[in-house]
Amino acid sequence: MQLTEQGCQSRRRRMWERLPEEIEWVLIADPRHVQYLANFWVQPLSFSGGERGLLLLERSGAATLMGDNFAIRSAAHKPFVDEEVLTPWYDHKHSVINRDHALLQALQQVAPRLKGRTGAVESEWLSVAAAKCLEPPHEAEVGSLLRHLRRQKEPDEVALMKHCMQAGDAGQAWMRENLRVGLSEFDIYRGVQEAAVKAAGRPALVYGDFRAANAKLPKTGGLPTDYILQSGDLFVLDYSVVLDGYRSDFTNTMAVGEPSSGVQTMFALCQAGMAAGEQVLKAGVAAKNVHAAVAGPFRDAGRPELFPHHAGHGLGLGHPEPPILVPDSTDVLMAGDVITLEPGAYEEGKGGMRIEHNYLITDAGYERLSNHVISLT
Amino acid sequence: MQLTEQGCQSRRRRMWERLPEEIEWVLIADPRHVQYLANFWVQPLSFSGGERGLLLLERSGAATLMGDNFAIRSAAHKPFVDEEVLTPWYDHKHSVINRDHALLQALQQVAPRLKGRTGAVESEWLSVAAAKCLEPPHEAEVGSLLRHLRRQKEPDEVALMKHCMQAGDAGQAWMRENLRVGLSEFDIYRGVQEAAVKAAGRPALVYGDFRAANAKLPKTGGLPTDYILQSGDLFVLDYSVVLDGYRSDFTNTMAVGEPSSGVQTMFALCQAGMAAGEQVLKAGVAAKNVHAAVAGPFRDAGRPELFPHHAGHGLGLGHPEPPILVPDSTDVLMAGDVITLEPGAYEEGKGGMRIEHNYLITDAGYERLSNHVISLT
Repeated sequence: MQLTEQGCQSRRRRMWERLPEEIEWVLIADPRHVQYLANFWVQPLSFSGGERGLLLLERSGAATLMGDNFAIRSAAHKPFVDEEVLTPWYDHKHSVINRDHALLQALQQVAPRLKGRTGAVESEWLSVAAAKCLEPPHEAEVGSLLRHLRRQKEPDEVALMKHCMQAGDAGQAWMRENLRVGLSEFDIYRGVQEAAVKAAGRPALVYGDFRAANAKLPKTGGLPTDYILQSGDLFVLDYSVVLDGYRSDFTNTMAVGEPSSGVQTMFALCQAGMAAGEQVLKAGVAAKNVHAAVAGPFRDAGRPELFPHHAGHGLGLGHPEPPILVPDSTDVLMAGDVITLEPGAYEEGKGGMRIEHNYLITDAGYERLSNHVISLT
Repeated sequence: MQLTEQGCQSRRRRMWERLPEEIEWVLIADPRHVQYLANFWVQPLSFSGGERGLLLLERSGAATLMGDNFAIRSAAHKPFVDEEVLTPWYDHKHSVINRDHALLQALQQVAPRLKGRTGAVESEWLSVAAAKCLEPPHEAEVGSLLRHLRRQKEPDEVALMKHCMQAGDAGQAWMRENLRVGLSEFDIYRGVQEAAVKAAGRPALVYGDFRAANAKLPKTGGLPTDYILQSGDLFVLDYSVVLDGYRSDFTNTMAVGEPSSGVQTMFALCQAGMAAGEQVLKAGVAAKNVHAAVAGPFRDAGRPELFPHHAGHGLGLGHPEPPILVPDSTDVLMAGDVITLEPGAYEEGKGGMRIEHNYLITDAGYERLSNHVISLT
């Protein structure tokens, strides 16, 4: 499962349609956007993790990838480009130079063909040293444009995210089968990671909240600690599986031991909030109205303060991303958005919990992408 | 286990000693160098993985970290800085802006205090958009300087790398106990990862070569496939555990079933090569001479072609790094270098193998940092 050439071509077309006509070339520098437009992703689980490529796109259709020889060898997949301009950084025979300079040398090889032609760069990510290889570029907001285009997922992106979701489901299933008094948060993290990576079928990044909540500490988050689960705790498993930069992000909360009636009531409010949110999900709906729908059951129960955070957010090559489902959001749902709905409830003396599904927004409504069981017990 | 304030201060002092006197401030942009100098590392296993901070250091001693509010919240540890300038990117109430622009806003807040004072930037990583917030800086090679300084590890860095080594040892031990016919490369990867992360005591990145070699395919590398181990295969486990950017990198090769006498002979040459290399490890020795020592036993056996690659390399916030142990290297070992020795032997019709230890170079010789068993069986 990976991005397709057709998908990359379609995303490039959408970018060119939005750029001023006089711009003949664009130099992409944000690693997420090099992936988005050319399927080039330096495997973060490699010695080249953190290294970069540069992508030159020309209005004629040509795509050129620049990088050092090892960054390209460490790609997760074969990129969809017409040309690779690689400079040797390391050859197993000689000392190495500053690795960043190898990337600059690749750009210097390509720069002459841009001379006298109007172009734009991704100024939030292109380095000062790289820019010196070029004539001053046009002031186009390439980065913001691409962040906006990313909302409308193409079929290959949705397929890749569904693969993340399947892996995420497996980790949630592991928790359902294994959660018990005496396990540490760190034990659960490792069990979930193993189950998720196994289901992904290849190495993946796993991150999120792997924390116990309880009456004293209803709101926690982040990577696991050594805390040992006790009867009466709640475990909030809100986590993501990342493949080639794309990700899932969904949640269940389970009770360790028998949940109190107060906890059960709060959980029912979360479920009602999610159901109410699903009722309104559809392209064209204001994100703030989705928040209002999810918050409805809490409000109707006279307990709006139980639910203090966003009702969800966009998801893709980043997280959270637009649309943001909050009271003062100016975002509007679009077909192609992948979003979360994530009502939560937190009360000192009782506990904290959150549930979450992921959805692809369509003109008719939505397709739910996550399939884990949401249940306290 | 993390970098210490004392270590960060010492590294800053070493940097200032090497920078021209007229430079009053330096703006650090490479995430590895922000970590190196201030213990600020955006947890790659978080939703902020891939986001960045900027670090302003002043000759007076002041250190200022800039970032968006969520990048800072996703730090692996509390950074050692005097001031954090955070801009709200997301507040759970409003839509978000381009996240990169939040970082720029933080820099814009700090920029006025740099006016009229001579400074230098890390031009390989500072973005064009960030540079626009500043007066044109001095042309100092900050990036290359820091890459060079990184060779001389301080005690806190060595301690963190030893923690990586202990976790790496646990993964190697898992292979010794579990390798057998019928496991897939991917099974072994997951077993090793689980053992290594458990031993690390916290989430870590695990990467490397998890591949079977055999008579037909003596030289392979990279992340695991679905290949199922057969009797007669060799498994080359050459992998790294990464904590806060620092890493281990060591190897053993084990036979699946009984190794042939030809394979045993090749393995003995690798062991002799490693022992010969250890004999010469010491600050002041030319890296090419270490390569020659490791290659000696292969040469003496009349089989120099069995060992085609480097004899080892530096290790730290990256891999491979100087010093590079190759025939035409111009590098010289320094006290504080952490390096690998990794003889390997590959022959069609027989198989492929590699062994590797990690060492801290001292004036007297070395301290071996990895403690796994190196053995074919």
